[in-house]
Amino acid sequence: MATPSTDVRRHPERTGDAALVREVLDEALIVHVGTVRDGWPVVLPMAHGRDGDTLYLHGSAAAGVFRDVRGGSRVCVTATIVDALVLTRSAFNHSMNYRCAVVYGEALAATNLDAAVRAVVEHNLPGRNADVRQPTEAELRETGIWQLDLTTASAKVRTGGPIEDPADLDLPAWAGVVPVRTVLGEPVPDEGVTAAPPHLRD
Amino acid sequence: MATPSTDVRRHPERTGDAALVREVLDEALIVHVGTVRDGWPVVLPMAHGRDGDTLYLHGSAAAGVFRDVRGGSRVCVTATIVDALVLTRSAFNHSMNYRCAVVYGEALAATNLDAAVRAVVEHNLPGRNADVRQPTEAELRETGIWQLDLTTASAKVRTGGPIEDPADLDLPAWAGVVPVRTVLGEPVPDEGVTAAPPHLRD
Repeated sequence: MATPSTDVRRHPERTGDAALVREVLDEALIVHVGTVRDGWPVVLPMAHGRDGDTLYLHGSAAAGVFRDVRGGSRVCVTATIVDALVLTRSAFNHSMNYRCAVVYGEALAATNLDAAVRAVVEHNLPGRNADVRQPTEAELRETGIWQLDLTTASAKVRTGGPIEDPADLDLPAWAGVVPVRTVLGEPVPDEGVTAAPPHLRD
Repeated sequence: MATPSTDVRRHPERTGDAALVREVLDEALIVHVGTVRDGWPVVLPMAHGRDGDTLYLHGSAAAGVFRDVRGGSRVCVTATIVDALVLTRSAFNHSMNYRCAVVYGEALAATNLDAAVRAVVEHNLPGRNADVRQPTEAELRETGIWQLDLTTASAKVRTGGPIEDPADLDLPAWAGVVPVRTVLGEPVPDEGVTAAPPHLRD
């Protein structure tokens, strides 16, 4: 199966390894899943989870992106975390610090739906499965979860400060790094809930 | 040009309008851009900016995704903002609140590079252009900025609280909404910088 090259063509020093692919997938709240439909790329956000080298994607079985997958569409799954805005003294050199993982493969219906649901539910809420009612057979049939091996994957990272043209260093503009973080706010309980909020990841 | 349908097939009540497409694109720090390469979908994160109904995408002219565009590849540009995790008493009904914009089109090299650079630099840093050195002709030639009309675009939104099976309402699990926000941290100045940090968006 010849996938697009996962070599990072530009800035190969920013290439990451398998551990980084896992780190980015685990930290990202969602992924963006690309398929091809009638010659057009289609990119949609999806919930996901990981168990070892298996990546699970969750969507309704009726969702368009999974119609493509049933028809044999190849997928590209991309997770990106923006870590900072990098401001330079010139417009041209502005950048961002980020970590990005890209996975190519052919998605198949999950073979172990219990494990798949578990991985997706745990993804943003470690330990959550212990607190909630597990799916019925009917619910599992309605759940579209697809799986993909992490065998063809790559990661790319940009870290550090501004990279300026030396001639720009005396310009009066502010330059530096503005960190970006995704944070969880105060949980808002549903009506009638008295249980303590679940453990939330940082 | 027949693009994939931008009708929202499931949950049509979550469909948004042109104003929502703009709102989501403006709030998202980055977009995910899909192209097709040798029959495979390719999805990569990119910086972007908007000016009216023109969406600009920024990447090095040598970046793979733009090689596809030069070859006539159609693109799908997707921006997603996760607003909350929605926790239910059952594993099955967990969801997220989010806003997502999807734009289809054929990207062309930006016809007004000055306006394009300006839009991309302003995107995450309103007013930034006034502070920094503007691009030279040589820099503009090195900059890959592409443009796309917002004519074929759609948005989808999920808001609100948990939607539970009535039979689950008495289960002891915590249920509710956990807000998600992207925040900017304390700016870290580059060496030698004395100017005040720029105005940062909320």
